[in-house]
Amino acid sequence: MADNKIIVDAFGGDNAPLEVIKGCVKASNELGAKIILTGDSAKIKKCAEENGIDIGSLEIVHADDVFDIHDEPKEIIKSGSNSSMAVGLKLLADGKGSAFVSAGSTGALVMGSTFIVKRIKGIKRIAPSPVLPADKGSFLLADAGANTECRPEMLVQFAIMGSAYMEKVMGKKNPKVALLNIGAEETKGRDLDIEAYKLLERSGLNFVGNIEARDMPKGEVQVVVTDGFTGNIALKLYEGMGSFFSKKIRWIFSGAGKIGALFSLGKIREFRKQMDYKEVGGSVLLGVRKPVIKAHGSSDSLAFFNAVRQAQKCIDGNVTGEIEAYVSRLASAEKE
Amino acid sequence: MADNKIIVDAFGGDNAPLEVIKGCVKASNELGAKIILTGDSAKIKKCAEENGIDIGSLEIVHADDVFDIHDEPKEIIKSGSNSSMAVGLKLLADGKGSAFVSAGSTGALVMGSTFIVKRIKGIKRIAPSPVLPADKGSFLLADAGANTECRPEMLVQFAIMGSAYMEKVMGKKNPKVALLNIGAEETKGRDLDIEAYKLLERSGLNFVGNIEARDMPKGEVQVVVTDGFTGNIALKLYEGMGSFFSKKIRWIFSGAGKIGALFSLGKIREFRKQMDYKEVGGSVLLGVRKPVIKAHGSSDSLAFFNAVRQAQKCIDGNVTGEIEAYVSRLASAEKE
Repeated sequence: MADNKIIVDAFGGDNAPLEVIKGCVKASNELGAKIILTGDSAKIKKCAEENGIDIGSLEIVHADDVFDIHDEPKEIIKSGSNSSMAVGLKLLADGKGSAFVSAGSTGALVMGSTFIVKRIKGIKRIAPSPVLPADKGSFLLADAGANTECRPEMLVQFAIMGSAYMEKVMGKKNPKVALLNIGAEETKGRDLDIEAYKLLERSGLNFVGNIEARDMPKGEVQVVVTDGFTGNIALKLYEGMGSFFSKKIRWIFSGAGKIGALFSLGKIREFRKQMDYKEVGGSVLLGVRKPVIKAHGSSDSLAFFNAVRQAQKCIDGNVTGEIEAYVSRLASAEKE
Repeated sequence: MADNKIIVDAFGGDNAPLEVIKGCVKASNELGAKIILTGDSAKIKKCAEENGIDIGSLEIVHADDVFDIHDEPKEIIKSGSNSSMAVGLKLLADGKGSAFVSAGSTGALVMGSTFIVKRIKGIKRIAPSPVLPADKGSFLLADAGANTECRPEMLVQFAIMGSAYMEKVMGKKNPKVALLNIGAEETKGRDLDIEAYKLLERSGLNFVGNIEARDMPKGEVQVVVTDGFTGNIALKLYEGMGSFFSKKIRWIFSGAGKIGALFSLGKIREFRKQMDYKEVGGSVLLGVRKPVIKAHGSSDSLAFFNAVRQAQKCIDGNVTGEIEAYVSRLASAEKE
């Protein structure tokens, strides 16, 4: 099983390759992760040397290019693509590693995962699914942006996959699933939502009904499903409000003086840590045959470290196997 | 012109009729607003008496019933409806007043406004449009929840109406209009968004392109348009994140001690005031022939006072007339 190696795109994100390298060395040292870096071998070695980092524990697979974040996602699957992302995806598809982490273009990663690594049998669409911080505990949001137009059965699949992830990776037993909607009643929303509600009720999942957006920050459910357009709006507003309020808290506090700061600093730190996406790792691309993690574009070494840890947990929890088994059980139940 | 009276539903919202009465008396005293309250006359008088409030300056038009928030919105237009909301809408339609304020059911208010007061000629849909607080100044969001399925031309109408409102009522010259979308490029989003983008570019409005949800709290544009489903998700997440962070700020501050509190209290108050929907009034129902303001369901007397002031500003700025003129100019330009 390829020794459960984790492949990491060394040239994805704003802070590549230095922060990627630092995060991977940390993961190698502290978690014992076996890591393959993809990307320009000479550049990786030069960067490590210049920064005095020992990368002896990391394997490197060379790739000439970097996938340009501004390129059309479909470029990733063109023959001859030799970007660090495409090479990483091919290694994953060929079984040379057990999971892949990249902070590159989400569109390209979804496209490449779909056509190079392939989807789990029966799964219609891949859904990038971040785990978001909330008051009573974090929750997974699917789809957070890949599929702008969805059919009701896709939302049910997102719910199945999200439940498996929250249980196997995040350790939440029997996770509560909710449909993001504009009211509590099952008659609310678009045709998509009304139909998805009915299907979710019959899914055998722990479906608790609709959730209104205002209740998301409470963290009372563990999986929130919606189409990729709505999910992307919700995700980015969640992040944007987080930044806005962080800024405001700093501003408010700038007047509190040293004595006030002494009393509150610990709490501010705790709150920031709770709301920091870097602590979570990245968005898992649910539906791919093997774990693929999209790290945030602005990831630093800590975020990459956590993304590798997240990939490790996906492997250990056999999330893709669980989803595959669930979907095939559903399919045979439907045949009966 | 009916002396520009403002009709107020005395029995809408969680705190009716007491907070409605208090807010209206304050508006009458401080703004010189001429107010007609609709609702059970005996109950209004009893409530005022019990609370020692002089309502001599308010006119009352009796209505037997209250529209039940759990009723189907269409009940509002059934013949014989004698709820405080329906009576208010009929007074407005009949020219007995120049604007209407209610904190009752949004669905019923949209339905009643559409069929009793009617839409502005040429306007396809009514859009409840709150003005939301943001860092550099507030912005209007349309549609915030009435029309879950929209056509591209409806979004353009929301933009036209929102621009007129921000200019005439909020005093923002040449307001910037943006389309809520999942990326900056004009090719992003659903068919609805791609098509609406093209139409907005040709609209003659100050259209600045797509806005991603994470940039909403920055307040760099004054009008944000989207369909009513997405708008409702965005609105409620905006409110929900606001409550969540307010709670967190209190929690953080509970450790700052009295000295820290002394330094920061002013800033906390300023921030809370900036983020408080009560300061804004309510959501204007854009597209109705006369100004209709939906006050928040949990409005207190200050929120009602501000909603009356907002109604007054709509009358003074002749917002509905401006929209009507704009739409008819557009229609004749299209004929040429």
